[in-house]
Amino acid sequence: MKQSRMFIPTLRSEVGEDTVAKSLLYMQKAGMIKQVAAGIFTYLPLAQMILDNLIAITKEEMDKINSTQLTMPILQPKELWDEAGRWSKYGSELMRMKDRHQRDFALAPTAEELIVATVRDHVTSWRQLPLSLYQIQTKFRDEARPRFGLMRGREFIMKDAYSFHTDTDDLDIHYLEMEKAYDAIFKRIGLDIIKVSADNGAIGGSASTEFMAISEIGEDTLVYSKASGYQANLEKAQAIYDVVDASNEQAKELELVDTPNVSKVEDIANFLKIDLNRTAKYIAYKDDLTNRYVLAIGPGNYEINETKLNNVVDGDLRTLTDAELEEQGLIKGFIGAVNLKTKDPFILVVDESIPNMTNHTAGGNVVDTHYININYGRDYTADYVADIKEVKEGDLDIESKQPLTFAKGIEVGHIFKLGTAYSQPLKCNYLNKDQKLVPMEMGCYGLGISRVLMALVESYLNEDNNAIVWPSEIAPYDVHVVIVDIKKDAQTDLASKIYEELTNKGLKVLLDDRNERVGSKFADADLIGIRQRIVVGKKAIENIVEYVDRANDVKEDVSVTDILDKVLKG
Amino acid sequence: MKQSRMFIPTLRSEVGEDTVAKSLLYMQKAGMIKQVAAGIFTYLPLAQMILDNLIAITKEEMDKINSTQLTMPILQPKELWDEAGRWSKYGSELMRMKDRHQRDFALAPTAEELIVATVRDHVTSWRQLPLSLYQIQTKFRDEARPRFGLMRGREFIMKDAYSFHTDTDDLDIHYLEMEKAYDAIFKRIGLDIIKVSADNGAIGGSASTEFMAISEIGEDTLVYSKASGYQANLEKAQAIYDVVDASNEQAKELELVDTPNVSKVEDIANFLKIDLNRTAKYIAYKDDLTNRYVLAIGPGNYEINETKLNNVVDGDLRTLTDAELEEQGLIKGFIGAVNLKTKDPFILVVDESIPNMTNHTAGGNVVDTHYININYGRDYTADYVADIKEVKEGDLDIESKQPLTFAKGIEVGHIFKLGTAYSQPLKCNYLNKDQKLVPMEMGCYGLGISRVLMALVESYLNEDNNAIVWPSEIAPYDVHVVIVDIKKDAQTDLASKIYEELTNKGLKVLLDDRNERVGSKFADADLIGIRQRIVVGKKAIENIVEYVDRANDVKEDVSVTDILDKVLKG
Repeated sequence: MKQSRMFIPTLRSEVGEDTVAKSLLYMQKAGMIKQVAAGIFTYLPLAQMILDNLIAITKEEMDKINSTQLTMPILQPKELWDEAGRWSKYGSELMRMKDRHQRDFALAPTAEELIVATVRDHVTSWRQLPLSLYQIQTKFRDEARPRFGLMRGREFIMKDAYSFHTDTDDLDIHYLEMEKAYDAIFKRIGLDIIKVSADNGAIGGSASTEFMAISEIGEDTLVYSKASGYQANLEKAQAIYDVVDASNEQAKELELVDTPNVSKVEDIANFLKIDLNRTAKYIAYKDDLTNRYVLAIGPGNYEINETKLNNVVDGDLRTLTDAELEEQGLIKGFIGAVNLKTKDPFILVVDESIPNMTNHTAGGNVVDTHYININYGRDYTADYVADIKEVKEGDLDIESKQPLTFAKGIEVGHIFKLGTAYSQPLKCNYLNKDQKLVPMEMGCYGLGISRVLMALVESYLNEDNNAIVWPSEIAPYDVHVVIVDIKKDAQTDLASKIYEELTNKGLKVLLDDRNERVGSKFADADLIGIRQRIVVGKKAIENIVEYVDRANDVKEDVSVTDILDKVLKG
Repeated sequence: MKQSRMFIPTLRSEVGEDTVAKSLLYMQKAGMIKQVAAGIFTYLPLAQMILDNLIAITKEEMDKINSTQLTMPILQPKELWDEAGRWSKYGSELMRMKDRHQRDFALAPTAEELIVATVRDHVTSWRQLPLSLYQIQTKFRDEARPRFGLMRGREFIMKDAYSFHTDTDDLDIHYLEMEKAYDAIFKRIGLDIIKVSADNGAIGGSASTEFMAISEIGEDTLVYSKASGYQANLEKAQAIYDVVDASNEQAKELELVDTPNVSKVEDIANFLKIDLNRTAKYIAYKDDLTNRYVLAIGPGNYEINETKLNNVVDGDLRTLTDAELEEQGLIKGFIGAVNLKTKDPFILVVDESIPNMTNHTAGGNVVDTHYININYGRDYTADYVADIKEVKEGDLDIESKQPLTFAKGIEVGHIFKLGTAYSQPLKCNYLNKDQKLVPMEMGCYGLGISRVLMALVESYLNEDNNAIVWPSEIAPYDVHVVIVDIKKDAQTDLASKIYEELTNKGLKVLLDDRNERVGSKFADADLIGIRQRIVVGKKAIENIVEYVDRANDVKEDVSVTDILDKVLKG
């Protein structure tokens, strides 16, 4: 392709308001994307070519595991969303519209309902299972604060696959195939991934794995150990916690002590001269949907992890406001399980470390007082005992006993075992071998195509944010031929010859034939990011060109007769 | 691909309400598409594979003419549409939505505004032109009556290209390149096309060419001559009309005659014993936007063509209602240009045949009367004289003098010379060689990807509507291997061997390994439409299979050793 006919509108200055995401700034500077509205972008030709490569690789890997492609519409009728009760549940992130007849439609954020409606009409027998279908389609999510460009956009490209099975064993097989297909995709495109088991969230179902690309703009916290290979999302992570096992200590007598103006756990520990992990932290929550109140109790030196807590009580919790605390008769900073009196009943959830924390300290439910020598079982009991604390930096990996590493990650893929979470309400049933009508076991598998593009930039951008070298499988071109001065016939003739020769070998070549200053051409070439570059300059009259391998910092003069070989070996 | 893992939900009975479009019924029966809502469909895997082939061919042909791909968003901000004044003009076919902040967006029906906004920010000099960009993207149009499946759907796939030029000569060059690229695409996919010059309609601009596939469900009428190669849309067609040139007849005296209860032109001709082409037909119109009234006058034996008329007065006309006629003082069936008195002024447009129609007949503007011996120029004059009549069957081709052929056509492509219709209002300017800021000349080029799929079915479906043979370049598979009885090891083993062998040669093979009755398998295979079929049945034990070339009605027993050769030569 002649660069004069390509539309790569590079910029010489920084753009955009988003000063956090270097990848967004870069992609705009490199003429890859252009913002149309908040969270809505045009993919310009350079990005398009990379996306095309990414999509082709994705399709190949889906093919290999017998997942077949279809395309479902973007407009999804409300009736379908009502069947699984998601029209009302999904909230304001769901983009909605009315057609000319005032019929309601959602703009697809995902397609569980639609694929189930497609399959249930046609698949009726165990003979027709398993079945795996995927699409590569535009998706919509009306983010409250669209940010980081393609990372949290409102219109984006996703590969979403859905599988249907007779039983969980068969689902497990395909789930594993899909996981391996994702591994293969990320390996081929050159994106390092950390896989973490994660919470299923609003999608529902029994288990899920997230594929995370490490990046400072990541919105998820990853916890991992290079020593053992342990990888988890913070929401799910476990560790050798810094907690006290005082189970064989002698229980002392419960005692209420004065703690004037001392309410924070750290201050109590200081004031009473005890270790922080001998105090208990209390946080009060409410589940507005079910009108339940929950009191979470954990060790003072840890945060309560709301996702873990939600999973224990199967709720959607939020912390109580100060007014609500007061209304319930709870005194902020002095809450405790002993002598607890509240207006509404509270579900008590204690962290698994609490029962072993003999003689611990917590609030006295009276201003400026705390109980010391509290013993779980003797002084109070809870409704649930579970791991509800959040792993923190410094905690040790269970297997390797080495400190865990924390990093921010971009979720580029997420696969779920849905079980019958959708097939049951949407009546996606089949006749099993015993001629019994039962719901199918389902999996769903997302891959953020446009997000992957951004994660790649985050990963491959150089330190000065002015150059990239694309990994070969997704690079828009194989070779970049740059003519230093197009007014010199020797240069244009030689460049054209080389261009022809490389193109005939099946290589994708970009020929910079523009009437621009050479400095500007090189700056553009760095932004465009092709690894192998051939510079046709003054020595063209001697049939010598400069060969550059940008990834390996190679720069050498090469005779034209050797250049094809050089490139092919390169 | 094993058919047991493919999702091709064929049906044994007819489906759908649309009894007119055989292609829609077929595609549903063949498990290619599934309706989700009126005019909204899922493309199932079989359709997806054909669409993929179609898209790949389109991309290759666009590449060849240096048109490069990008992807613009589906959500387009209202502000952009306002710039060209189309938000209010487009009417209820434009799908609209509000985001969570109540900002208005259109769901892309086309992307002139967006591409102009993309280009104008970056292309500022003649040095950067020409530029041709295209996308393959989902489009939306809220049709009042979605019908004929993919033909007039509300969500569909289009290739839309846009080009930018310094002058009309350069636009003409690319317009021709694009026309040839379209010719190549249609030739490769095996779709016969009639190209007609057409009206630009709501898109605006100076010239356009439609690519029409002949089909009984076509909504456009094509007029063409095989003898001369003349091809035109009815809106633009011209012919040797059946009109009277009486220009050298003696003008007789104008006379008002009684015509009791005789108002239709045919009845008047009978009543007065004159030829129909000696009468004049009057139709009254209004342009609501500009509040203008128009009276069109044509020969009695032709219809007035509203598009031609609109082009003459540059309006958007509708016929007057009976009440409006009365209000204007016009008597239905007795309107004439002589003695015409109306409440509002009327613009008079006469067909070019009228001035030569010496001594013709028209209404007397009094009930039950007509004037005879009317002579244009002497008795009245009009504001415009132009060709406003509609070619009818029987009219002769101007060049070949042979009768023109009429056919219904599906518009599968439409290319436009836009000129500066968008670049001017949207300020898409560039500095020309004289350092003057001038608007770019633009072209836009649509190709209805999903419509082409339907047109192909219309074109290739057999007479009984139960089988198709896909043209090779777009066929989902090259070969269909059908195992007659999967319980027979000899058959499954041999079929697997053949499948491997063909697949290794790079052929796309579908292997029917399903546990179904053979009759059902053959019926499905006919619906799926692969040209070459290999049936592995009883003779598998003798290493003999049946080879079928469905396009050429070949059916023969072939030894396994010869089958690869047979297929490759086939």
